[in-house]
Amino acid sequence: MKKPVLYTVFLLFALSVVGLPVASMAYDVEGAVAEAIDEIEELADVSAMDAMFWASNTWMLVATFLVFLMHLGFASLEAGMTRAKNTVNILFKNTAIISIGILTYALVGFNLMYPGDFSIGEFFGFAGFGIGGLYDGIIVEDGVQAFTGWTDFIFQAMFAATAATIVSGAVAERIKLHSFLLVTTLYVAFVYPWLGSWQWGGGWLDQMGFYDFAGSTLVHSVGGWAALAGVILLGPRLGKYVNGSIKPIVGHNMPLATIGVFLLWLGWFGFNGGSVLSADPEMVSFVFVTTAIAASSGVIGAMLLSWFLQKKPDLTMALNGALAGLVGITAGADVVSVSSAVIIGFIAGLIVVVSVMGLDRAKLDDPVGAISVHLTCGIWGTLAVGIFSSEFSIVTQLIGVVAYGVVAFAAALIIFGAVKATIGIRVSEEEEMVGLDIGEHGMEAYSGFEIYTTQ
Amino acid sequence: MKKPVLYTVFLLFALSVVGLPVASMAYDVEGAVAEAIDEIEELADVSAMDAMFWASNTWMLVATFLVFLMHLGFASLEAGMTRAKNTVNILFKNTAIISIGILTYALVGFNLMYPGDFSIGEFFGFAGFGIGGLYDGIIVEDGVQAFTGWTDFIFQAMFAATAATIVSGAVAERIKLHSFLLVTTLYVAFVYPWLGSWQWGGGWLDQMGFYDFAGSTLVHSVGGWAALAGVILLGPRLGKYVNGSIKPIVGHNMPLATIGVFLLWLGWFGFNGGSVLSADPEMVSFVFVTTAIAASSGVIGAMLLSWFLQKKPDLTMALNGALAGLVGITAGADVVSVSSAVIIGFIAGLIVVVSVMGLDRAKLDDPVGAISVHLTCGIWGTLAVGIFSSEFSIVTQLIGVVAYGVVAFAAALIIFGAVKATIGIRVSEEEEMVGLDIGEHGMEAYSGFEIYTTQ
Amino acid sequence: MKKPVLYTVFLLFALSVVGLPVASMAYDVEGAVAEAIDEIEELADVSAMDAMFWASNTWMLVATFLVFLMHLGFASLEAGMTRAKNTVNILFKNTAIISIGILTYALVGFNLMYPGDFSIGEFFGFAGFGIGGLYDGIIVEDGVQAFTGWTDFIFQAMFAATAATIVSGAVAERIKLHSFLLVTTLYVAFVYPWLGSWQWGGGWLDQMGFYDFAGSTLVHSVGGWAALAGVILLGPRLGKYVNGSIKPIVGHNMPLATIGVFLLWLGWFGFNGGSVLSADPEMVSFVFVTTAIAASSGVIGAMLLSWFLQKKPDLTMALNGALAGLVGITAGADVVSVSSAVIIGFIAGLIVVVSVMGLDRAKLDDPVGAISVHLTCGIWGTLAVGIFSSEFSIVTQLIGVVAYGVVAFAAALIIFGAVKATIGIRVSEEEEMVGLDIGEHGMEAYSGFEIYTTQ
Repeated sequence: MKKPVLYTVFLLFALSVVGLPVASMAYDVEGAVAEAIDEIEELADVSAMDAMFWASNTWMLVATFLVFLMHLGFASLEAGMTRAKNTVNILFKNTAIISIGILTYALVGFNLMYPGDFSIGEFFGFAGFGIGGLYDGIIVEDGVQAFTGWTDFIFQAMFAATAATIVSGAVAERIKLHSFLLVTTLYVAFVYPWLGSWQWGGGWLDQMGFYDFAGSTLVHSVGGWAALAGVILLGPRLGKYVNGSIKPIVGHNMPLATIGVFLLWLGWFGFNGGSVLSADPEMVSFVFVTTAIAASSGVIGAMLLSWFLQKKPDLTMALNGALAGLVGITAGADVVSVSSAVIIGFIAGLIVVVSVMGLDRAKLDDPVGAISVHLTCGIWGTLAVGIFSSEFSIVTQLIGVVAYGVVAFAAALIIFGAVKATIGIRVSEEEEMVGLDIGEHGMEAYSGFEIYTTQ
Repeated sequence: MKKPVLYTVFLLFALSVVGLPVASMAYDVEGAVAEAIDEIEELADVSAMDAMFWASNTWMLVATFLVFLMHLGFASLEAGMTRAKNTVNILFKNTAIISIGILTYALVGFNLMYPGDFSIGEFFGFAGFGIGGLYDGIIVEDGVQAFTGWTDFIFQAMFAATAATIVSGAVAERIKLHSFLLVTTLYVAFVYPWLGSWQWGGGWLDQMGFYDFAGSTLVHSVGGWAALAGVILLGPRLGKYVNGSIKPIVGHNMPLATIGVFLLWLGWFGFNGGSVLSADPEMVSFVFVTTAIAASSGVIGAMLLSWFLQKKPDLTMALNGALAGLVGITAGADVVSVSSAVIIGFIAGLIVVVSVMGLDRAKLDDPVGAISVHLTCGIWGTLAVGIFSSEFSIVTQLIGVVAYGVVAFAAALIIFGAVKATIGIRVSEEEEMVGLDIGEHGMEAYSGFEIYTTQ
Repeated sequence: MKKPVLYTVFLLFALSVVGLPVASMAYDVEGAVAEAIDEIEELADVSAMDAMFWASNTWMLVATFLVFLMHLGFASLEAGMTRAKNTVNILFKNTAIISIGILTYALVGFNLMYPGDFSIGEFFGFAGFGIGGLYDGIIVEDGVQAFTGWTDFIFQAMFAATAATIVSGAVAERIKLHSFLLVTTLYVAFVYPWLGSWQWGGGWLDQMGFYDFAGSTLVHSVGGWAALAGVILLGPRLGKYVNGSIKPIVGHNMPLATIGVFLLWLGWFGFNGGSVLSADPEMVSFVFVTTAIAASSGVIGAMLLSWFLQKKPDLTMALNGALAGLVGITAGADVVSVSSAVIIGFIAGLIVVVSVMGLDRAKLDDPVGAISVHLTCGIWGTLAVGIFSSEFSIVTQLIGVVAYGVVAFAAALIIFGAVKATIGIRVSEEEEMVGLDIGEHGMEAYSGFEIYTTQ
């Protein structure tokens, strides 16, 4: 930092000795002073940029821990929305997933998602195995140093495990634990980051002008497609669809489910706010506003529609409405207006109610509504960017949605199918009846409580 | 940013060509260099201020999500302190309130609270409907850019819903859902921001020298007055006051209540810390200290007094003691000393115990102690500013307390009264007995658990 | 900030009047300009440093509230891992501890831990009683203003109570409330800060080259030693060890325990990340990575070993594995590589399983595994610094471990022993059977729920 100044001082010194006493001195003084001013201006800017770098990196780490907290949100929501007899199993899965997600992302995921160079068109790239010095360095956004390579890694790592967690809810209450862990490890280690590279790694969809700000498609739909594949291959829970009628199987702990949704909403301020990739005040605060507004109008939309259809205000629908609004705004939180955010969220709230009912009619049994929230609203949010922002084309958005859908769904079917064909994916009827907590883990979630039915 | 430098360079150039070769050159060099230095100094300051702006805005957004989390805190506390049969209802109300609060604040609230110009004395103003480009721009505190208009809106929006949430706890277990939603929508959309404008919008109380740093009166008492109005018009829960004796109706989930209080305490670091309106290190850290200290001594005060009076250490009193200390310090967290914070919090802890017992004797049935925590301690905290800080007059503080009390209570009585007179506010006796979860929502909070009594 | 410029301008002015018109003017211009450049460079640096100070202080306050949240994590984990009949007691203890911890740290703790001068060798010092203006001033790290004295106090105060909270879990379900409060008040007010001064206060172990980044030993082991002393003096819970066999006493609420562990993990980003003592981007982000990685591999280590030994995937072991990894990385999170963090965490995950089993064989009854997590893994983490970082000596690390162990354990034995000999530490058999909630507090945690056994 001192070098330019020393250089300037030297220049001035040389100038003073040689140039000033002579007649041409006027020109030399002017040049030297101008040069000195330039150097100093850069210095001031560099120093301020250093300080902005500190602020941005701090914000990105805050966003990181908020996204981390989403995993507790998912665990709470899923556990609350299912039966008491499968609670330990769900908590175990979610504790394992975040751990597996972080470790596999360090080992291969980050380098698949951000390969730098693509070796197969703009379609596939891999920057090599491993953790270590790889993530040193500083990421620059809009000409300003924004965050370190370590921050980049850990922020993205928290995202990676999300895709797997989305699957967890949909396949709950009937999937074999070790099969689930195997499937999601493969999906989160390879499929999620590979597909992510198409857009965030600078791949072919990014080249084409597709836009997905924080991952309506890249995270939520990619998770949702795998959830759908799992639900299809697993089949519904025992007793869910009997003689053509749909039997509700209700969640066992509404405070826990509500805690889950509030933590997810909270975490989304980091999920979307961190996707600005700097602490840029205008951008981050605008994203906070659109995110909060869309979640709020998602609640209102789902609340009103379900109240109208069911004649009762439904808590689980209101909660899913918040998540629907959040997934819906995720693709365009930085490029749509606030009034568009109201509309996008409200429509997402309507869509999630219709989607939950539609999947039930199609006998696709998703205990927590994960497919409706993450896949259906993920598609809606991605298309909404093309509708509500003049910068982006709805056709390109649709191409992205379809491309991700085809490949993510196919990949999930292959992985789930291969595991089903070999070690199996579904627990026995006996285990499903008694619950996976006793069956898989030999323990209960609520020891000492009278629980009158295993439903 | 480059303009002053270009100007300077031009000046120096002109100077060099014209001035230097002549005899008067000495004076010109001095002037030009001095001017250049001035310009550069401003540049350095502006750059550093930009970076401070990034830090401040980041802090304000962190404070925003902390205040958001308080809504989960309220939901958890209220649910935990009431009976299992009314839990879904409480969770639903709190999910709806935050959503309604954010949307109405965007539509009218913000522009009522910060009207810019007042059209009726310094008593009422309105800057117009709507969301959109309204909140662009940057808010400057103490000559430094502090945060964006978007940040301003979303931080304040999180506050707005708080007033309604305070009401929720006091009227729990017997109010009709749609009546509650109607009342609180009106209160949070119009009354809270209008009253807020008197102080934070630069209205007549602000002009008079009233001080309420983060809202002991503007948020907590304003919510508390509405809670009191609701409790009076609703009457007590069935079985609470029988034949002149007070029957305790205990909460069903103490871990949930404790989670609620810790989340509220956590959120208060944003509630008070964010009210500094910048990341100013001295101010924000000092406010953290007074806030934590007052909460701690509130716990000790309530714990000791209730232990002494009841011969048993009472968890719910200790928890309310924390909240009492927090409400108590809210008005003066930035202007009282740390030892004053100890005293303010301790006295608040004593007051809340006495207030809870007093309200019960007066047959004002407040299931969660909301009136004692938010109204009684809100008044105490506001007066404490006049007692413990020499800058402010206790008379002015008292005028503010009374003015807010009269108008907030009257407004709440009118709204609650009008709704009572038309669609009614209280559920039927049958519904109250069976619980609002079944009655209003057709579902249970803890499906599968044996719950032996609906009390 | 303006002074150097005024000085420069004055210099230039003096120069222009006196020096320039004379023949030696060339030299004077050069000198003045060079001096001006120096001054301005400092100005730019100072301004940027101010902005960095704002970012750093903000980060430290974020870290502070994260560590605060760990107290909710401990409360939830301990309550969830014990029986429903002792839940109110645990919640009460944890609410009281954080309050007592903050207040005693303000009164004596901070000034014992950071005495400035040591009055007895480098072994003991005390900077005097009290709160007030004591903590004004700004702490400088690596030549940059990092945070205020208030921030320093409140960040450290959140740590202080942690040591007491660790004890709480180990002695749960059988200790008298007032005895516990007495013991922990003494321990957290005097023992923890005094021992802390040996290293973080610049005492003899710091002089010797011992390294404990964020407190594997200073916080976790110091708490763990007291937990061990308490467990020994209290004896096991009734029915735990009968006729030479070990009877499992299982926790009553696994979602609550899981919430606890996720909140602790979350809080650890502040515990370790804040121990950088600035927002230095490289350092803080690197610490985030090692912390998350060690927690993740702790989960995997504990999961695999317990699955192998017990033939069932054990949720409580997976949860303790996360905490084990976190405690393990705490001493060296900033000085070991990422691959070392994987290994340290994984080994900690193995160790915690073995330690839990070993303590049970030794009939040391620790209901939540606090000794295994905090003491055993605290020792491991401290030694790991000597193994995985070439900068530090394992011999010195061992000396530190032993010194802390001897004094902390002895101090805890003396305090626990004195209380046992006077007012007693263990509740009656009747109270233990019926539960401490009824016995000590006269209330239940889950009013209305059928709870079929008090075990």
